Amino acid sequence: MTSQDIAVDLTAETQTALERAEAKHRHEALYSDRAHNIKQSAVRDVFDISIRPGLVSLAGGSPSLAKLPVDLVAETAKRVIAEHGMTALHYGGGKGTEELRELICEIMAEEGIVGASSEDVVVTTGSQSAQDIAAKVFCNPGDVVLVEDPTYVGALNTFEAYQVEVEAIGMDAAGLVPEELERRIAELEAEGKTIKLLYTIPSFNNPSGITLAAERRQRVVDICREHNILVLEDNPYGMLRFDGHPLTPLRANNPDDVIYCGSFSKIFSPGVRLGWALVPKHLYRRFYLAAEAVVLCPSSLTQLLVTEFFRVFDWRGYLAGSRAVYAERCAAMLQALAEYFPAEAEWTTPDGGFFVWVTLPEGIDTYPLLYQAIDAGVVFIPGAAFTPSDAPSNKLRLAFSGVAPEQIREGVRRLAPVIRAAVEANAASLR
Amino acid sequence: MTSQDIAVDLTAETQTALERAEAKHRHEALYSDRAHNIKQSAVRDVFDISIRPGLVSLAGGSPSLAKLPVDLVAETAKRVIAEHGMTALHYGGGKGTEELRELICEIMAEEGIVGASSEDVVVTTGSQSAQDIAAKVFCNPGDVVLVEDPTYVGALNTFEAYQVEVEAIGMDAAGLVPEELERRIAELEAEGKTIKLLYTIPSFNNPSGITLAAERRQRVVDICREHNILVLEDNPYGMLRFDGHPLTPLRANNPDDVIYCGSFSKIFSPGVRLGWALVPKHLYRRFYLAAEAVVLCPSSLTQLLVTEFFRVFDWRGYLAGSRAVYAERCAAMLQALAEYFPAEAEWTTPDGGFFVWVTLPEGIDTYPLLYQAIDAGVVFIPGAAFTPSDAPSNKLRLAFSGVAPEQIREGVRRLAPVIRAAVEANAASLR
Repeated sequence: MTSQDIAVDLTAETQTALERAEAKHRHEALYSDRAHNIKQSAVRDVFDISIRPGLVSLAGGSPSLAKLPVDLVAETAKRVIAEHGMTALHYGGGKGTEELRELICEIMAEEGIVGASSEDVVVTTGSQSAQDIAAKVFCNPGDVVLVEDPTYVGALNTFEAYQVEVEAIGMDAAGLVPEELERRIAELEAEGKTIKLLYTIPSFNNPSGITLAAERRQRVVDICREHNILVLEDNPYGMLRFDGHPLTPLRANNPDDVIYCGSFSKIFSPGVRLGWALVPKHLYRRFYLAAEAVVLCPSSLTQLLVTEFFRVFDWRGYLAGSRAVYAERCAAMLQALAEYFPAEAEWTTPDGGFFVWVTLPEGIDTYPLLYQAIDAGVVFIPGAAFTPSDAPSNKLRLAFSGVAPEQIREGVRRLAPVIRAAVEANAASLR
Repeated sequence: MTSQDIAVDLTAETQTALERAEAKHRHEALYSDRAHNIKQSAVRDVFDISIRPGLVSLAGGSPSLAKLPVDLVAETAKRVIAEHGMTALHYGGGKGTEELRELICEIMAEEGIVGASSEDVVVTTGSQSAQDIAAKVFCNPGDVVLVEDPTYVGALNTFEAYQVEVEAIGMDAAGLVPEELERRIAELEAEGKTIKLLYTIPSFNNPSGITLAAERRQRVVDICREHNILVLEDNPYGMLRFDGHPLTPLRANNPDDVIYCGSFSKIFSPGVRLGWALVPKHLYRRFYLAAEAVVLCPSSLTQLLVTEFFRVFDWRGYLAGSRAVYAERCAAMLQALAEYFPAEAEWTTPDGGFFVWVTLPEGIDTYPLLYQAIDAGVVFIPGAAFTPSDAPSNKLRLAFSGVAPEQIREGVRRLAPVIRAAVEANAASLR
């Protein structure tokens, strides 16, 4: 290579860099207003970190697949493709297959939603996609969506992409507080706001593990109905109540006022990316057309796999086993917290689901603690991720779902000195 | 059952019906402005009809899977689940797996996009989803998206859901006319419009089958660059040029100005619902975060299946075979059209892809002909579906991709008398 060649190469490289910089500058003006609202999820930040070897991850809300008969799943996949390849590998209808929508009605019946029609079900690419569609169909920029404080970070990201104003409503140990809900609705209406949806995870809320008490459930729907607010009920963990008796979903007795979102991610596998929405009959058409405009149709292959697997597999027995696994893991976490954490820390005692929510004394910001925790060999999600507010949070989410009991114990043991130091420093600063 | 029971039942039923009517009325106010733009796709209307037994469907653009080794797909699915179940059945990263993104770069290299980085690829739930994300990230309500006239109905539905103004630019036999593009951009800019995207299917446009000539390709990108318009290049059929030499995509020499959408639907299987976007580096982060906000992550299972299947399968040989299949089907359609259709009809002669576009004399509306065609035992898609305009169209789309040559011939034979009668009636009305 002559020096002239090098000069030419450098020029070409410089040229490319300059062109890119110019395009970057020029394209900045092209982003939609909503694009500026689309943020990296804090969960995702931590997702990348938490796969480092040696770390104990109490971060991700992954289901345990340890007891899933993987060979039966594999065999079933082979069979549905070999026997129904021309269906499994082709386009399907935008609503999902009739067979899967019927299975979904059977599953919902187990949860307490009796008599739902497969005609009112839309199969979606995970239940995240159902939330995206609900926001698309109902929310103009500036409209208000009510959520629980705290709530699922993925839903927050989805709503914010539609330039919605997300308003968080306080919970106590029995879930959303009806009086608080009414008060906040009245305030927002007085400000002239248009409230479109209440997004709620009534059973084993992500991230808090809190469950909306049975006696509050109808009251919450009634308040929303009075104010013409649709309820978007997200119930991925409903079947995972430790005692095996799911609380009746809000949708059960309110078919006209609740859009219900379910998911195969927690009861079977997140990898098939299948969830669903059960939609009030009068809202169904617009909802499903919007679903179609996003993905055309859900995967025929994973739909057939799930339908056939649930047909040959004792899924009710498997769920009973899963509940026992999660109950054991939750107990391990609660016990380790009691043993290792300082007395100043408080936490929830969930009846099901995947998460424990820890509250530290006021004044502590859990976000910087994350990096100390990583140095100590454990990962969690800081509480600030789960509210629309940008304020620091003294909370943190610990997931017990995806980790074996001894690892949970080890993770809590590693985290304890970080928490203890923060509590002591905070107390010292107040003196 | 006593008469009193019946009375109570009737009352309950009436009550339910009244409640639903009331909810329907009340909820009408909750729809977003964009929801009113979400329409049933005409293709989907016909999709439901075209699965009736006995009908010849020249409607849906389904790939031929006849030569796909379904048993090898089945065996591969079994193997990836059995060997990598804990990955295949779990959540994955929002961008898609590294292995699939590398395979996608290999595939794009075959099409003429050399040196693309897997870091710039986002795996999506079909390429429809990539279009949805592009609209989400770049388009405010009222922004303009330019499209070809005619263009893909699914993209029209997606854009309209974002309340975008879709402007169709004329094509001739060599595709988008650069002078027409410049003229229309100047007009729109003079009207104060903000143009964000040119959505184009440069190779074997759906529905017209027309290909943008090689000598026009750079000119089209240059015009867009001068006016700061991003090019959204949709190239699902690029590898299916009958002569086996794909035309160089717009993206190849314009990495900073083109978002490129590819798909496994036409080269492998629509049932796995996997497509991708190759995004300019400086736009990547926002694009992928928006993808994540919609579906969290693409299906791990179908990603592993595609990656492994393409590793063990001679996909280049299979694509050569697919091209021969489509070339034969296209030839059968062109021959049948020449044989059966009246002299007044004209049609395109595609170099690849799935579709022939028929133009009837002015004054004929092909939409009502659809119902006559169904009575005659054949289905097509009326031309009006493929433009943003509501005006009647004298065009129709015939798909040769999913039907065997003898069926194509039979379909055209059944359609011919319907066309002939329309041409004669139209001529008579002009006399």
